[in-house]
Amino acid sequence: MPDFSKIDAYLEKNMDGSIAELSKLVAQPSISAQGIGLKECAAMVADMLRARGFTAEIMDTEGAPVVFGERKGKSDKTLLFYNHYDVQPPEPLELWDTPPFEPSLREGKLYGRGVSDDKSHITSRLFAIDALLDADGELPCNVKFIVEGEEETSSVHLHDFIRANKEKLKADACIWEFGGVDHREVPMQYLGLRGICYVELSVERLSADVHSGLGGSIFENAAWRLVWALSTLKGPDEKIRIPGFYDDVRQPTQRDREMMDALPDVADEYKKRYGVKKFIKELTGGTDLKMEEVFVPTCTICGLTSGYQGPGSKTVLPAKASAKVDFRLVPDQKPEDIVRKLRAHLDAQGFEDVAINFLGGEPAARTDPDDPFVRTVVETSEEIYEFAMEIVPMIGGSGPNYPFVHDLGLPVATAGLGHPDTRAHAPNENIRLDLYLKHARHMARLLKKFAE
Amino acid sequence: MPDFSKIDAYLEKNMDGSIAELSKLVAQPSISAQGIGLKECAAMVADMLRARGFTAEIMDTEGAPVVFGERKGKSDKTLLFYNHYDVQPPEPLELWDTPPFEPSLREGKLYGRGVSDDKSHITSRLFAIDALLDADGELPCNVKFIVEGEEETSSVHLHDFIRANKEKLKADACIWEFGGVDHREVPMQYLGLRGICYVELSVERLSADVHSGLGGSIFENAAWRLVWALSTLKGPDEKIRIPGFYDDVRQPTQRDREMMDALPDVADEYKKRYGVKKFIKELTGGTDLKMEEVFVPTCTICGLTSGYQGPGSKTVLPAKASAKVDFRLVPDQKPEDIVRKLRAHLDAQGFEDVAINFLGGEPAARTDPDDPFVRTVVETSEEIYEFAMEIVPMIGGSGPNYPFVHDLGLPVATAGLGHPDTRAHAPNENIRLDLYLKHARHMARLLKKFAE
Repeated sequence: MPDFSKIDAYLEKNMDGSIAELSKLVAQPSISAQGIGLKECAAMVADMLRARGFTAEIMDTEGAPVVFGERKGKSDKTLLFYNHYDVQPPEPLELWDTPPFEPSLREGKLYGRGVSDDKSHITSRLFAIDALLDADGELPCNVKFIVEGEEETSSVHLHDFIRANKEKLKADACIWEFGGVDHREVPMQYLGLRGICYVELSVERLSADVHSGLGGSIFENAAWRLVWALSTLKGPDEKIRIPGFYDDVRQPTQRDREMMDALPDVADEYKKRYGVKKFIKELTGGTDLKMEEVFVPTCTICGLTSGYQGPGSKTVLPAKASAKVDFRLVPDQKPEDIVRKLRAHLDAQGFEDVAINFLGGEPAARTDPDDPFVRTVVETSEEIYEFAMEIVPMIGGSGPNYPFVHDLGLPVATAGLGHPDTRAHAPNENIRLDLYLKHARHMARLLKKFAE
Repeated sequence: MPDFSKIDAYLEKNMDGSIAELSKLVAQPSISAQGIGLKECAAMVADMLRARGFTAEIMDTEGAPVVFGERKGKSDKTLLFYNHYDVQPPEPLELWDTPPFEPSLREGKLYGRGVSDDKSHITSRLFAIDALLDADGELPCNVKFIVEGEEETSSVHLHDFIRANKEKLKADACIWEFGGVDHREVPMQYLGLRGICYVELSVERLSADVHSGLGGSIFENAAWRLVWALSTLKGPDEKIRIPGFYDDVRQPTQRDREMMDALPDVADEYKKRYGVKKFIKELTGGTDLKMEEVFVPTCTICGLTSGYQGPGSKTVLPAKASAKVDFRLVPDQKPEDIVRKLRAHLDAQGFEDVAINFLGGEPAARTDPDDPFVRTVVETSEEIYEFAMEIVPMIGGSGPNYPFVHDLGLPVATAGLGHPDTRAHAPNENIRLDLYLKHARHMARLLKKFAE
């Protein structure tokens, strides 16, 4: 094992500077769903790469630009880091203790929108590179960064970008944008992501809202049309009723179930953390709950909007209504196929008036748990964390790992600094500084070991 | 017929002053649903009454104050005017051509929130009184005004107020807050109002919104719970599925149908005005459509809100969801009974988690079309309008006429200055100045004739 004392000392000593760099990045809003601050944030990331001697390009797509950076190292091997500079919308603003784009440090945590997802992962990895360059004057292997700006809006243009830039992105392995410890402080290795198909369903039946005393009796009501259409998608039994929806579902294997079985129970943790009153489908915990969380596709209403939503009563028949709906997919479901089946289903049910706006999607993808790269990531974490890294074959969230796994042919492993109360996508998003330092130490070790 | 030339001349000459008084009243926001400006507006109305020699009291209720004014006249008979000083919320603001609380005069119309519903009705009636006082130095009969501040939020406290003040409100007849001409310029006499039962349904299943990749698989979704609960209330056949909902419905009589039959067809007018694509229940027009509009109770979703509603996608499982729902009632349905049946139905369907907040209601009530007071109102309109007033036995809208008809025992007739494009409850609410003058002329004649 090489000596990391110099590297660790550098990281301990320079934490304040790295957190300052992170704070500057968080203070730059970069909300892909709302098209806010994306170019500015991409330019900041490119500058940060160049400051480490990387070549950095800001590459246009049909959406937000992608930042690509590269620096050669000692060995021929190439590690690709996938990150994103965009963040979720900060709403509801009133639930933040401090403003989302004014990073705030308190009790060992840094708060701000995007601080965990995903800006700290960018800066902590650059921090590890700083330490390696300080110690050795060069990197142990080639390092590439691909930092996109549409991860929070389903990475709509990334798949095409990757297919068009396969040579440039050529690598031997990939470290994913996120990772972290669970509630026991055990670092987790997530080896698969569900796919996603995100749509907005909308109905418009009148030219303007009408007094409900008139319109309520004889005009079609957009809100009712939407409610009725939605109620045909899924019933209280949680079964999705779109014909053919489950056709391509590949069932988890016995090995998947064994891996899930080895992981701790999550029921009490979720009940406490999210105020869960009960789980769906009469689930109470154990492996069944864990399996349901990741190996079953979903249909989630993420938002509803129609008519009057203020205090008290307003007697109005809404002209328009819409819903945001997110399907989480498992192998081998495909988002385009789901949209097609959804359209056919709505038409068959008499809801030709319900428009579908496809807001993005990607299929699920998984990495083999026995890949040597996965082992390297696990082993290099050992002297950093209190507990050994545990392998999770698949998680419930989504991300664009499909083109990395299937187009670039890379093993994709996760490592990161998230923690169970990190509040990604929610108010008071935060990171723990102790985990920030640990992740930088882990990445420095990984780069050395991987280079061998 | 007495000579009205002096009165008409006064009204012609003093229009600008009366419109200025109206504009001042409209510029004072008084949004009952949001609790904005109610006391200020009540004080303005009381001052306007006092300026005509009325006693005026601002009487507290558990909600917005009621303004009561009275002035004795020559005969012993007493006419009661019912009006309201509150207005609907102005949202959506972006659809107004000029700001809702900055009255704007263009092309013979005055625009502003509440200008039609109901502030112009207050000032045009006071304008008629000004003309009578100018001509005769006294009023032909006793006149009372009751001007409430919660009409737009279902007059929650008015029924109790009327029962507690029956002696004070004693009168021989009542002129209702609204009225007007239809699209043919025919003045309409509306003799019945549907009842209303307005509720907010809400669901909360988690302590905060959760990432949909996690929560969507295993947590209860408040938006889904709400959609499923709503879908049990009414289906695409428009039949309300709450057991017992139709039990107390009194069917319209043959005479009702004949009166509706005599009224013009509304189908083309509605299609044009509101962009209606098709009517519900395969209705196409004629008497069936007109009957459906007023003699059938409804269940209307007025608003839906849950989770993320901004642009693009946000992958979140909403912790809360709510809907505003308005039931229009016909004789002899009672709002409290409907709430009780709704609760029982939701419980029976497994939606104990859907909370009901009763935001107000009142039963339907009707006045006999053969009442002599109705005849007086119709006859005194004859020399003002191009066409004879037509009788509508019942309309689709609601108002608190029940305590006037059933507690005070009054015939309640309508007369007013609305027109089909008046946009009550919608952006760009407006009145036509020609109809404002006509209504004042009508009311001056009515007071004289009624006094005999």
